[in-house]
Amino acid sequence: MAGIGSLLAAGGTDAADMRNQDAALDSRLRAGRESLGPAATPHYDKPLELARGEGVYLFDAAGSRYLNMYNNVPLVGHGHPEVVSAIAAQSATLNIPSGSLSGVVKAYAARLLGHFPASLGQLVLTCSGSESNDLALRVARAVTGRQGVVVTRAAIHGGSAAVAEISPLLSRGEGLRPYVRTVPAPDAALAGTAPLGSWFAARVRAAITALEAKGAGFAALILDGAFASDGVFTDPPGFLAEAVAAVRAAGGLFIADEVQAGFGRMGGGLWGFTRHGVVPDIVTLGKPMGNGYPMGGMVTRPDYLARASERSPCFSSCGASPVAAAAGMAVLDVIEGEGLVRNAVRCGEILKAGLRGLAKRFACLGAVRGAGLIIGVDVVDPQSGAPDTAGARRVVNTLRQNFVLIGTAGLDGHTLKIRPPLCFTAAHAAHFLEVLRAVLASLG
Amino acid sequence: MAGIGSLLAAGGTDAADMRNQDAALDSRLRAGRESLGPAATPHYDKPLELARGEGVYLFDAAGSRYLNMYNNVPLVGHGHPEVVSAIAAQSATLNIPSGSLSGVVKAYAARLLGHFPASLGQLVLTCSGSESNDLALRVARAVTGRQGVVVTRAAIHGGSAAVAEISPLLSRGEGLRPYVRTVPAPDAALAGTAPLGSWFAARVRAAITALEAKGAGFAALILDGAFASDGVFTDPPGFLAEAVAAVRAAGGLFIADEVQAGFGRMGGGLWGFTRHGVVPDIVTLGKPMGNGYPMGGMVTRPDYLARASERSPCFSSCGASPVAAAAGMAVLDVIEGEGLVRNAVRCGEILKAGLRGLAKRFACLGAVRGAGLIIGVDVVDPQSGAPDTAGARRVVNTLRQNFVLIGTAGLDGHTLKIRPPLCFTAAHAAHFLEVLRAVLASLG
Repeated sequence: MAGIGSLLAAGGTDAADMRNQDAALDSRLRAGRESLGPAATPHYDKPLELARGEGVYLFDAAGSRYLNMYNNVPLVGHGHPEVVSAIAAQSATLNIPSGSLSGVVKAYAARLLGHFPASLGQLVLTCSGSESNDLALRVARAVTGRQGVVVTRAAIHGGSAAVAEISPLLSRGEGLRPYVRTVPAPDAALAGTAPLGSWFAARVRAAITALEAKGAGFAALILDGAFASDGVFTDPPGFLAEAVAAVRAAGGLFIADEVQAGFGRMGGGLWGFTRHGVVPDIVTLGKPMGNGYPMGGMVTRPDYLARASERSPCFSSCGASPVAAAAGMAVLDVIEGEGLVRNAVRCGEILKAGLRGLAKRFACLGAVRGAGLIIGVDVVDPQSGAPDTAGARRVVNTLRQNFVLIGTAGLDGHTLKIRPPLCFTAAHAAHFLEVLRAVLASLG
Repeated sequence: MAGIGSLLAAGGTDAADMRNQDAALDSRLRAGRESLGPAATPHYDKPLELARGEGVYLFDAAGSRYLNMYNNVPLVGHGHPEVVSAIAAQSATLNIPSGSLSGVVKAYAARLLGHFPASLGQLVLTCSGSESNDLALRVARAVTGRQGVVVTRAAIHGGSAAVAEISPLLSRGEGLRPYVRTVPAPDAALAGTAPLGSWFAARVRAAITALEAKGAGFAALILDGAFASDGVFTDPPGFLAEAVAAVRAAGGLFIADEVQAGFGRMGGGLWGFTRHGVVPDIVTLGKPMGNGYPMGGMVTRPDYLARASERSPCFSSCGASPVAAAAGMAVLDVIEGEGLVRNAVRCGEILKAGLRGLAKRFACLGAVRGAGLIIGVDVVDPQSGAPDTAGARRVVNTLRQNFVLIGTAGLDGHTLKIRPPLCFTAAHAAHFLEVLRAVLASLG
């Protein structure tokens, strides 16, 4: 600290001379010192410094415009005026932590819960998807009295210590804990001729048995409704039902992680789990809930929450703020007012049809999967059909050079992950398909 | 869910009719169903529904005005126009998660780090103080390769599973884990004639020895810079140095939790730890950082962060957002521009002098402690001097009826916790002291 020595020398109780410290700082800035940690590394080979966002577009410092199909957080579009106004107005009016409830928080909670099955009658608001999943694990373990959790092999459920433990892709330096078991993604290609639902349920049952044998017992199966980090697995609708029945038979809870899938992204309703005709025991929500305002939520049965709260209070002190509620309310208004769930279905179909057309033409594209506006496309070796991780990176980085942003996913990182804001249109889809065609031709 | 059956019956891929669901919801709202969990219980006997905040004041739905001396989150005052403008402008311009860094995030990180000792050269931005402390524990455990943590008896470091474990006040249903050891608060009244620093360090050493004997080993001592939930312990300045030396001697890390103490609240600089002339290994920041915008941070040595990141990436996907950075930047501007650190010292002295005057007059008031604008006052039995928990609740609830908001703290809950926004003035102090005098006289 510029000045800590002199501050203490001066007696330690004088007010800091912040201006001097800021001057020292400026020189640090000029020196270009990297002040953010290693996890802040950008995703592209050529780093991207962004300056502005509007609708589906991001703009860099030089004014170049990018079609953003990468990010699920700005759900209803970058800088949506209705959401921005709601945040600004509520920030000016009242912004307090959750202790003292305000009308807008209660109204939002009631409105949001109205979009869930009646059994899921209580909401805890948090500041992030990580906090929501952390809380969900605590509730599941308190309710079952057991520790064991089943996740998919490439799951990412968040960054807190408890949640990173159940996120195999984040545990690169360490093996998984004995109370965590993985199952493969529900990939029809792996299931072969077996019905996908039975194949997946058998793997879940085996994982539960292994946990019980280890003595950890089985607390919960937690799944991302879109299997986004696994590579996007959405079909056939209903395939999850048998696995969820196996969970219930073993006395465990099913946690639907809707951080990626939720709020209409998959079409057909607001939540990914509706696609499978199942009712979760706990649902967790995150980033898109406030279109980027940091908020999340955990929805569960009141008796479950009461039981967990007996052991330790379930809270997030900044979670239930009126500003978060106002942002969340505006997001629901926009989804409804602009018909974004219907739009996700329509534009998702256009994208998938186009991608399947390209896959016929370019042998490096494999399976195309997805529902609504979350789509995965495998990049494979044209000869062997094996996953082509480097090829997927090449496609993503060349698209970025051509002002289109997408990501990768999957255990092998060979799946193109396509996830635009829900205000994406047929014209954007056509533009993307044309750029991708040109990129594939150039790489070919 | 109103409609889930019909949605699935309709084929599962049609867009939800959200308007119908909202109608069902309205009736739920009218029915007054409690949709938020048990942790959302208000703090006062007579619940408070707040509608608006401005400066040091909160207003309820009926328009009554309350002097808010309870909450540390609205650090520079409710609805501060500079902070609100910064949030509004940046929300409209660019709000993305941390993957793609923007100039404002880098500038904020560099500016904030300039207020820390030079060794603490990297920042991870998070969404909350809980996330910051969760990450700090991961770093300390990765760096030391050990599990054990020492905390004070009434510590509250946050709500995630890992952090709730080291928050004895939150573990009401369960005992503490074998890798968590507590020490009493650094209370001169407990230390008796012993120098407080030596007395406290001896307790920390004993806790470390106990952890080593248990086989968990010792990873970190984590302390709130103001010991706010323990009852506020701030004097004499420098008393922590010996305990921190004991931590280093044992190969452990010292984590300064500045969620309560940070950003000038204690006067004499931005951080509580400067009061003790120590340099922490990790500093954690929370709520007041963005004046209520959900953000937090963990500041540590680059080599520590690198080591922890080898095992598992240290991130919070919504943490390093440009809006959080803009809010944080505005808060620093306001602290500096309005001279709030100096003001905290000045008004804190006025409050403490007045409280000590009242303590001479009313035998139910015991010790008065604090630095800057965080102050604790014990409520005791006039005869025995024993903690009077019910008496403290009576004072707090009667003040609330007289439109002044404060809280309680401490293992026995008998300490009045006084924590106004830093824009608190001498006139507010005079008003508070007069209302408290009248309340004490009426309860007498």
